[in-house]
Amino acid sequence: MSKALIFLFNFTLKLQNMQKPLILVTNDDGMLAPGIRALVEVAKTFGEVVVVAPDSPQSAKGHAITITEPLRLSKVQIFEGVDAYECSGTPVDCVKLAKHIVLKGRKPDLCVSGINHGSNAAINIIYSGTMSAAMEASLEGIDSIGFSLLDHSKDANFEGSKKYAHAIIDFVLKNGMQDGNLLNVNIPNISADEIKGVKVCRQAEAHWVEGFIEGLDPHGQKYYWLTGDFVNTDNDEGTDIWALDNGYVSIVPSSHDLTNYKAIDSFKSIEQNI
Amino acid sequence: MSKALIFLFNFTLKLQNMQKPLILVTNDDGMLAPGIRALVEVAKTFGEVVVVAPDSPQSAKGHAITITEPLRLSKVQIFEGVDAYECSGTPVDCVKLAKHIVLKGRKPDLCVSGINHGSNAAINIIYSGTMSAAMEASLEGIDSIGFSLLDHSKDANFEGSKKYAHAIIDFVLKNGMQDGNLLNVNIPNISADEIKGVKVCRQAEAHWVEGFIEGLDPHGQKYYWLTGDFVNTDNDEGTDIWALDNGYVSIVPSSHDLTNYKAIDSFKSIEQNI
Repeated sequence: MSKALIFLFNFTLKLQNMQKPLILVTNDDGMLAPGIRALVEVAKTFGEVVVVAPDSPQSAKGHAITITEPLRLSKVQIFEGVDAYECSGTPVDCVKLAKHIVLKGRKPDLCVSGINHGSNAAINIIYSGTMSAAMEASLEGIDSIGFSLLDHSKDANFEGSKKYAHAIIDFVLKNGMQDGNLLNVNIPNISADEIKGVKVCRQAEAHWVEGFIEGLDPHGQKYYWLTGDFVNTDNDEGTDIWALDNGYVSIVPSSHDLTNYKAIDSFKSIEQNI
Repeated sequence: MSKALIFLFNFTLKLQNMQKPLILVTNDDGMLAPGIRALVEVAKTFGEVVVVAPDSPQSAKGHAITITEPLRLSKVQIFEGVDAYECSGTPVDCVKLAKHIVLKGRKPDLCVSGINHGSNAAINIIYSGTMSAAMEASLEGIDSIGFSLLDHSKDANFEGSKKYAHAIIDFVLKNGMQDGNLLNVNIPNISADEIKGVKVCRQAEAHWVEGFIEGLDPHGQKYYWLTGDFVNTDNDEGTDIWALDNGYVSIVPSSHDLTNYKAIDSFKSIEQNI
């Protein structure tokens, strides 16, 4: 090959690499959870992947951040051909460290969080570290998707999740998101072939019916341990729970705006009464 | 007094007590923060008060809950004439323990959280333990208000906050809330007389510009500590930040529904493309 041809070949390769998307992967189940391994495998087929994930399980940490103590961050060898860093903090801390320390300001084209072991549909989004990490990236202007499989087990089968995560990531990388930049994706716990497709939905109005198991610790001190059952009372076809119950992957476009707009007008009279 | 009169007198007293509202007070700064003492003083003027609050500062814990370890709950003597319990968990844990253990199913007429030392306006609601506790109570169908003063100091002056917390609680107990059951109230850090009134607003589209201070601990290990500045880019008069900047108490009716409704239609085409 002539020198000119070699130069052209190398230049084309470089351009291709530059055009590859940069994908940040995180989760709340920790770096060793099978779910994040499944998501890394999917993300690698699209471009450059960087992982920043908690060094221990951080389920149900919501949007907690660590402000009263320092954080630790260590590079780890875990996924072939992928830079991975474990962090001592919460899922949201991971995203902040990814942005400021690991990526040093390079903005990812996409952040994916999960695949969570267990549902983050309906009200679970509020408690979820997986979705809070995705939301944190969305606050930084990064298109962001949280994936969750409706199976808490360590031995969960992620084949269906991987198939649909791949399809959804592909769609978002090609088409972007017109309004907002955050998706809450939940995958029913059935085989890839049984899944009927995807539904774009609203968050169902479901809730937890809870209680505490009371006991005495080995030192005779009383403790309380949370337990509960998820109850859906919202059977509308437009909800994520309906989609999941009917064999679809649910996609809820989500946001960090908690304003209850309907109530602004109805509560306005307080301004004249105080 | 005749026996009949004594009976009538006691019966009337009992009726009055029964009609007094039951108010649950919590916070995220912990049981010893001056802000919760200020809120207890206000709440006591309305009815029966029960306090369940964290046994240590729990700022920025978002909607975190404790699921992988047991919780502790102890009755403490701290506020005169008020039952108070400290909890080892997060602010949301406090509300769950209040409901299931302390109140044993008695439903409070109102939950108030705070008064937080520092703003929970705009995007701060997402990180806030104070507002997450209030939201948890709202999820249980309890009218709920989080109060925050724009002053982080331990020596903050709560006089203006107390005046407006009293007025807002009074309004809500008398009128209820027509739509939704959660308010995010922030109070500007000016004297009670300088405050111009209240504004019912939407959450401003502000954000944090952050970074990490890097250092070495005494063992030579690197650490990262979050730091940041709050930046508002949303100068609309309908926002909480505008209200606060202009001397008003901001009231944002809030909700746990994170659905981005606008994006449901615009993202719908994915259903046919996967």
